[in-house]
Amino acid sequence: MGSKVGEFRKKLKIVDVKGGPNEGLDRVGLMIVVAGWVRTLRAQSSVTFIEVNDGSCLSNMQCVMTSDAEGYDQVKSGLITTGASIWIQGNVVPSQGSKQKVELKVNKIVLVGKSDPSYPIQKKRVSREFLRTKAHLRPRTNTFGAVARVRNALAYATHKFFQENGFIWISSPIITASDCEGAGEQFCVTTLIPSSREAAESPVDAIPKTKDGLIDWSQDFFEKPAFLTVSGQLNAETYATALSNVYTFGPTFRAENSNTSRHLAEFWMIEPELAFADLKDDMACATAYLQYVVRYILDNCKEDMDFFNTWIEKGIIDRLSTVAERDFVQLSYTDAIELLIKAKKKFEFLVKWGCDLQSEHERYLTEEAFGGCPVIVSDYPKEIKAFYMRQNDDGRTVAAMDMLVPRIGELIGGSQREERLEYLEGRLDELKLNRDSYWWYLDLRHYGSVPHAGFGLGFERLVQFATGVENIRDAIPFPRTPGSVEF
Amino acid sequence: MGSKVGEFRKKLKIVDVKGGPNEGLDRVGLMIVVAGWVRTLRAQSSVTFIEVNDGSCLSNMQCVMTSDAEGYDQVKSGLITTGASIWIQGNVVPSQGSKQKVELKVNKIVLVGKSDPSYPIQKKRVSREFLRTKAHLRPRTNTFGAVARVRNALAYATHKFFQENGFIWISSPIITASDCEGAGEQFCVTTLIPSSREAAESPVDAIPKTKDGLIDWSQDFFEKPAFLTVSGQLNAETYATALSNVYTFGPTFRAENSNTSRHLAEFWMIEPELAFADLKDDMACATAYLQYVVRYILDNCKEDMDFFNTWIEKGIIDRLSTVAERDFVQLSYTDAIELLIKAKKKFEFLVKWGCDLQSEHERYLTEEAFGGCPVIVSDYPKEIKAFYMRQNDDGRTVAAMDMLVPRIGELIGGSQREERLEYLEGRLDELKLNRDSYWWYLDLRHYGSVPHAGFGLGFERLVQFATGVENIRDAIPFPRTPGSVEF
Repeated sequence: MGSKVGEFRKKLKIVDVKGGPNEGLDRVGLMIVVAGWVRTLRAQSSVTFIEVNDGSCLSNMQCVMTSDAEGYDQVKSGLITTGASIWIQGNVVPSQGSKQKVELKVNKIVLVGKSDPSYPIQKKRVSREFLRTKAHLRPRTNTFGAVARVRNALAYATHKFFQENGFIWISSPIITASDCEGAGEQFCVTTLIPSSREAAESPVDAIPKTKDGLIDWSQDFFEKPAFLTVSGQLNAETYATALSNVYTFGPTFRAENSNTSRHLAEFWMIEPELAFADLKDDMACATAYLQYVVRYILDNCKEDMDFFNTWIEKGIIDRLSTVAERDFVQLSYTDAIELLIKAKKKFEFLVKWGCDLQSEHERYLTEEAFGGCPVIVSDYPKEIKAFYMRQNDDGRTVAAMDMLVPRIGELIGGSQREERLEYLEGRLDELKLNRDSYWWYLDLRHYGSVPHAGFGLGFERLVQFATGVENIRDAIPFPRTPGSVEF
Repeated sequence: MGSKVGEFRKKLKIVDVKGGPNEGLDRVGLMIVVAGWVRTLRAQSSVTFIEVNDGSCLSNMQCVMTSDAEGYDQVKSGLITTGASIWIQGNVVPSQGSKQKVELKVNKIVLVGKSDPSYPIQKKRVSREFLRTKAHLRPRTNTFGAVARVRNALAYATHKFFQENGFIWISSPIITASDCEGAGEQFCVTTLIPSSREAAESPVDAIPKTKDGLIDWSQDFFEKPAFLTVSGQLNAETYATALSNVYTFGPTFRAENSNTSRHLAEFWMIEPELAFADLKDDMACATAYLQYVVRYILDNCKEDMDFFNTWIEKGIIDRLSTVAERDFVQLSYTDAIELLIKAKKKFEFLVKWGCDLQSEHERYLTEEAFGGCPVIVSDYPKEIKAFYMRQNDDGRTVAAMDMLVPRIGELIGGSQREERLEYLEGRLDELKLNRDSYWWYLDLRHYGSVPHAGFGLGFERLVQFATGVENIRDAIPFPRTPGSVEF
């Protein structure tokens, strides 16, 4: 009784055959097995071509078959159609066609799972809107397969960058009783409403109440109101002031009723926090980070990036190469306002000192004023920024910075944090925020406070920036927006 | 207007000095700066010793100072106490003491932030229970600093393992209308209750209702009941059946009212999913994964692991080395039951075919029956397993597997998934689950279905297993449990 577990071997994928420097020519003569999904099938009189994809890369494997192949009867009978899964054994041979260097000469084919004729992902191009209603099948298209692989590469490059620079990944809490930005727009998390199956028909009267008719939070799971986090920053600060450099990479939430191509209710954020660091260190870190991840995908996702360059956004590779290679521009908010006022461009929103920059202003700065180079604007008026940002000596600005990039506008927002207890408490009072709710955050200033700084980056904006997809709903596998929580 | 952003340089940390193979002896003679927090200060007649920690490693830097050091007056006046943050410049010299190879001869010291005398993390050992109430300061202790670093290393090793084996990381949704396990115990996510500041005093009557007095979900953010995910598996399956091999690594939630040392309401899960794979592939992958991450921390976190071996769980390094090196045992559930029935041990819960294994049974198998070797039990009765697991030919078991490890019991649970439409639909009907809610999951079986398998691993259980910490609340920075949502 009791046997041993066999060794785990990575199975051969199409990328292992065709992903090398000579696109598979070094594999010629090998007998291999490919398992994947049929993209197209063309039957000619004496030969049948099947394009198979397994998602390991953009390329299909072209499989060429004559009637002597084992299992050919399944092809002949029409059982193998677009979307079907198959298992094919054959020899790698040089391709006769010009679209690929090698193809597979099939010895044997096995239909694994047929595809119902209603399969919605046919070869003809379908709209992105339609594909959002098929979020479970859209990764089988070229575009969404490529987005998934580049998204993965960006995530891994993120971990690599921070790990190689001595940052510790920490998981900030998702459910929280705090409100980092003091801005509201949070989702409530509760068990006062029964679980999924009964929720749809649950009477309001069944919700526990106090004798004054208020919601009786003492009966809730956490015994008080709890919410989904809008940012892990305050929690990250607690770890930065113990471990020096940390970063979070996790989901965050905004219950903002924005039905735009730039907003999601659920999105992933990367929030590094650096101890013994000021705003300059913060800007330098954000710059190095962005250049690292952009360089990483240019080097490691060539085929997918070529696809985006051809089909999604012409010139994206040049745009990203510029970002990876050039120095970023840095200017103060005050200088930026001056530059915008002098600009010959007509803006929809009026510009004056004290106003928040709109997307049109941000894009003008990075796309036109500085010719496609990322621009870091710093030292914003304190009234338009969060309570935790460090006050500058001028008394009217804070040590904040936003990084603006072409097409997206603001990609990164960061600041040096207010490490001086009296200033921080003063700011909480000015904004009528309750000091008691921030007791632990204030404690960091009671016990060995240090200058520290950090930034936040919305991961899906980075995916948009790096792939050229226009709508943020196409930059995450299962987008959550007002009225939309399917899958 | 517009200047360039300076280069990001990693600042020197204590680990960069003392973390090398000769513990800093190669740095002797260098003038360096250390910035960190005071762990202890001992003033002798002619010399003062300050132990400084910056969280980059377990080791402190011992700083030795005489009265001629610049800034010595701050030491003399008693301003520099445990918990204070300081900035020290000095020369690396061979240490006179036996506890370290090198120390810092101080030229200059600057007090950055003083520590209030109420600082709760003093040298005397404090209980874990107490430290949970100080979750914002506990990373400044040896134990929690080490747990944070090893947790980070386990997370990075997880990404490395899957990336090196061609898996794509995908983010499964956090907010969902589905219920993966069909088990309930989910948190409801809603905006029908006002955001944080007003929630505490919100009347039940303010919740929108239909004319029948039911909760009016059409007015909620998602226009229907929405919940926090209990597992990303079903979503991962959609990507696996397009990209072949994928994994999730994200937070999951259970609204289970369990106040034990093994349960959290919010925890991180790793869920790989493999296409064209069966249960044997799944077991082999789980084995290779666990051995990889264990080997990774033994190789890369030696100092922290020595600390756990001495102070938290004696023998943990041997226990983990066994796991990294030995073949795992595999046996069927039926054989496991037989073995448990024949065991000389008295169990609290009776064992018979059909029952779920309890923690005591799981631990007996791995700790006693197979001498500390991980054990994979497979082919469980279908009645005690989830609807999506593949039915075996015997009609009464499913292709499920649990990996049991010493001290923890079940660390990993996985299965081959039911890829046959008619079996899957039959199982949904048997369990009275609504086919319509699973329309997209069933679609995967309509269009090119493939054999596939995967598993789930609770990341905090892995942290417990790898560090020896007994309570799962000490394996995550900010634990969420019934009644506890602070920080």
